[in-house]
Amino acid sequence: MSIDTALSPTPRSTVRRLRDRARTDRSELFDVLDGSLVCHLAIVLGGAPIVLPTGFGRVGNILYLHGSTGSMSMRAALEQDVSISVTLLDGLVYARSVMHFSMNYRSAVIHGRCRKVEGDEKIVGLRAIVEHLAPGSWDYAREPNKRELAATVVLAIDLTEASVKARTGGPGDDDADIERGGVWAGVLPLQQHWGDPVHSSDLERAYEVPEHVQQRITMR
Amino acid sequence: MSIDTALSPTPRSTVRRLRDRARTDRSELFDVLDGSLVCHLAIVLGGAPIVLPTGFGRVGNILYLHGSTGSMSMRAALEQDVSISVTLLDGLVYARSVMHFSMNYRSAVIHGRCRKVEGDEKIVGLRAIVEHLAPGSWDYAREPNKRELAATVVLAIDLTEASVKARTGGPGDDDADIERGGVWAGVLPLQQHWGDPVHSSDLERAYEVPEHVQQRITMR
Repeated sequence: MSIDTALSPTPRSTVRRLRDRARTDRSELFDVLDGSLVCHLAIVLGGAPIVLPTGFGRVGNILYLHGSTGSMSMRAALEQDVSISVTLLDGLVYARSVMHFSMNYRSAVIHGRCRKVEGDEKIVGLRAIVEHLAPGSWDYAREPNKRELAATVVLAIDLTEASVKARTGGPGDDDADIERGGVWAGVLPLQQHWGDPVHSSDLERAYEVPEHVQQRITMR
Repeated sequence: MSIDTALSPTPRSTVRRLRDRARTDRSELFDVLDGSLVCHLAIVLGGAPIVLPTGFGRVGNILYLHGSTGSMSMRAALEQDVSISVTLLDGLVYARSVMHFSMNYRSAVIHGRCRKVEGDEKIVGLRAIVEHLAPGSWDYAREPNKRELAATVVLAIDLTEASVKARTGGPGDDDADIERGGVWAGVLPLQQHWGDPVHSSDLERAYEVPEHVQQRITMR
């Protein structure tokens, strides 16, 4: 499948506020998604929106979600348009005036209709979700059995209709506040780190942490 | 105002999936909110949900949001019920089978109707939002002027209708997988840290980082 390298905005995926923060390259959407572990899925139930955190995976221009077959949100997500947002917080922006305090972030908002995935693509989707959460784990841990697969719904959503925003850099203070001086301004970066692995209490013997987990920690 | 110490579930704020993860104490809702810098606000526009990241503040049982007076999402949030979700990711759970991989997290989902805040409460709300983002900054930086206040909408939502979920601990593997052995399982903790402050390039002289910012960093 060929994918437009540029995001193709529709009315609802067009950034209206702070347009200078809009990013238009599809690779930036992928970067935001690939750097986030959790997305927030919004559906409408009984006329009101509900937003829930959930894991996800990506293969090319398709985002995969999963849940229990009994999940109300998974069922609702199949019957209507949904919106999915992912946000990476990079730092806090301290300004000279309170109304210019801000955050440095990268965020994506996706709109579209989910489809239910079956057969081979169901495995592709589950693999993408597990590998997104814990790279190297799909081939290391036991694969899903028939019972587990039957109890799980996998949904796919096309990443065509999406917007990306990002803020970087220091505060955008008013000239008068800059000239007046006397106030510190700058950015406090926010970073995520992996802690030391905690062995499961029910391990049958003392294990070395496997290489795919060790690799992830050394990237911290 | 007296606040129930227990969360009072309505049908839509009752945890249906994985009920053993439901938390029922209001203090746990407050802890999740106070530990998060960004929330995800879901509204309905043109029949479809939209979810957007935004900052927030809390005073007692009230959550405050703000935005530009021109913001479509702020206007929409006043005309309908909204949902707001906050998620703290504490670690990744590596299991012996791929379908038991999970995340340790604390999350809150809020439902309700926003009201527009004016006068003294508008300042209370803005102060809460700024102090939530950057403690100690409201009294340090320049306060809002009339023009800035006129360009800003502050919304309040009652935290009465909310659910809280949390997962902690190691994997919940099947007995057969535990007995079979041969696979490492455990938790990889995820931690957030503050980086070193980056001075704004337009500072008029070399500043010491002020004490309220320095305090925050030493808590890392």
